[in-house]
Amino acid sequence: MFVEKKRQKKKEMSRVAVCGGTHGNELAGVYLVRERLKRRADGTEPVSVVTVMSNPRAVQLCVRYVETDLNRCFTRATLSAPVSETSPYEMIRSQELNALLGPKGSAQAVDLLCDLHNTTANTGLCLITYSDCDWICLHICKHLQARTNTKMASTPVRYVHFDIPLNEAYSLDSVGKHGFAMEIGPQPHSVVRSVIFSAMQEGVQLMMDWICQFNSGTLFEGGWVDVYTMVKNIDYPRDSETHVITAAVHPNLQDRDFCLLHPGDPMFLSFSGETLRYKGKEALYPFFINEGAYYEKGIALSLARKRRVEIPSVRSETLR
Amino acid sequence: MFVEKKRQKKKEMSRVAVCGGTHGNELAGVYLVRERLKRRADGTEPVSVVTVMSNPRAVQLCVRYVETDLNRCFTRATLSAPVSETSPYEMIRSQELNALLGPKGSAQAVDLLCDLHNTTANTGLCLITYSDCDWICLHICKHLQARTNTKMASTPVRYVHFDIPLNEAYSLDSVGKHGFAMEIGPQPHSVVRSVIFSAMQEGVQLMMDWICQFNSGTLFEGGWVDVYTMVKNIDYPRDSETHVITAAVHPNLQDRDFCLLHPGDPMFLSFSGETLRYKGKEALYPFFINEGAYYEKGIALSLARKRRVEIPSVRSETLR
Repeated sequence: MFVEKKRQKKKEMSRVAVCGGTHGNELAGVYLVRERLKRRADGTEPVSVVTVMSNPRAVQLCVRYVETDLNRCFTRATLSAPVSETSPYEMIRSQELNALLGPKGSAQAVDLLCDLHNTTANTGLCLITYSDCDWICLHICKHLQARTNTKMASTPVRYVHFDIPLNEAYSLDSVGKHGFAMEIGPQPHSVVRSVIFSAMQEGVQLMMDWICQFNSGTLFEGGWVDVYTMVKNIDYPRDSETHVITAAVHPNLQDRDFCLLHPGDPMFLSFSGETLRYKGKEALYPFFINEGAYYEKGIALSLARKRRVEIPSVRSETLR
Repeated sequence: MFVEKKRQKKKEMSRVAVCGGTHGNELAGVYLVRERLKRRADGTEPVSVVTVMSNPRAVQLCVRYVETDLNRCFTRATLSAPVSETSPYEMIRSQELNALLGPKGSAQAVDLLCDLHNTTANTGLCLITYSDCDWICLHICKHLQARTNTKMASTPVRYVHFDIPLNEAYSLDSVGKHGFAMEIGPQPHSVVRSVIFSAMQEGVQLMMDWICQFNSGTLFEGGWVDVYTMVKNIDYPRDSETHVITAAVHPNLQDRDFCLLHPGDPMFLSFSGETLRYKGKEALYPFFINEGAYYEKGIALSLARKRRVEIPSVRSETLR
């Protein structure tokens, strides 16, 4: 099939943010940001990068958050709500971060915001975004996928799309002109595993390489990227009275993030030994399977639809 | 070599305790205790068993502990210390549990106390005790090791010995006449994995089977059990000023619990890429490698010496 080739001109990325510790117990990002802040004293940063420890109080306590989940505080409504001394710490902090890195949706916002996360789920490396047509994010994903002979060669790289309007987008990465969460798993919360740390370090380095090449006028050829668009969340089976969960993710599904789940496939194994099956009518791709922080949110796993998206060639317009 | 055969007579096990949620975010034990408490209403318990949720407040919040680590509160000193309304919750709770299941060291104490734990380390199933000559605990370990064609057949079972006098023994299992922590990993804290839950369920069932057979007068043949005696703990490399850790467990060591570590073997990989090696002079067995809850305790891993212990045949004296 003939596909008309397009070429997009984009402004160069003059200001990039790398954030970690948005969830204080996701330690690969925490230690990566600490390492970057140390190294930054050398003045060897290849592009203009602001490195931020997003939730220092939660990092100090090694908890996800202190009062409320910071990474749900970046909707327009929360960012513009009046705050006082009695407001939750994370609500105040989200407005500080918005002032530093945004304001969200404005010309002053950083060009690209990369927010570092970890999950207990076996996701590999995911770029999670609010757009399926952000050519910058898609090209960075393609660049990460193309790496060879690197430490993270065994780590799959995928592009995940949350189909939510920018006003309602709730996470820190939505503050940048372009942005994504770089989510890597599996890693228990409050633990740092060397292999996960190295994969994240390399993911950030490859992103930086892409930005440097882009800013220096390199043409990046177009192509295809698989995009996983979130369709719905599935909760654990729960006791109708106590709301306590009554089953764990089925052993056949555990750790099989992004492996197609068919109607009738085992989904949960109850603590009394009963298998519960996927009752949906459409085969979908599960991810965030048994993520520790989502028990309280009522999410055992998320389900996505996959499609191939064609992306155009891009070149920075500044230097053309 | 000729070894003289001994036969030990033991009293029957008339009162057994199964405890979980001593650490509120170690979820296999939490859900197993909930399941047992539900099932107990049936009155189908094969032996006299008391099932206890040790730290209900921590379970409610899904945290390890609320004010202080409950599983460090069972020394004689802490159990006999005066408490008031302002004492840490776990200190009060340890005295309640001692009254319910002990008193520690008394004739009224439960015959056997099994306390259920999870670890982020790849330990398989460990029975952790304060004695290397408790024939009951050693025989139960041998019984678990001998299981075949079971779900947990792929889970290694090991006996770990902390060489600490009973007065200073700090954990809940020290309250029973016999006792151990049944520790299973790897599982992230605040997560329940079906395979780990099933292994724990089966471990408890096999323990119960052994007790029932023992109480009905079965002779258990002697034999040999490998005992891992804890020698020392190793901390993470840390910044001398900030005390922040500067390295993760080396990828070659991560997940290799109970695999012999030789002098000069890689132990840590610093966040700046430097390999740090094991400087000890003796090859030892690492365990609790990169356990999430031990960062705050200054423990990156523990090291043990292994020896084979001969155990005598045992039979309950009540029914002989």
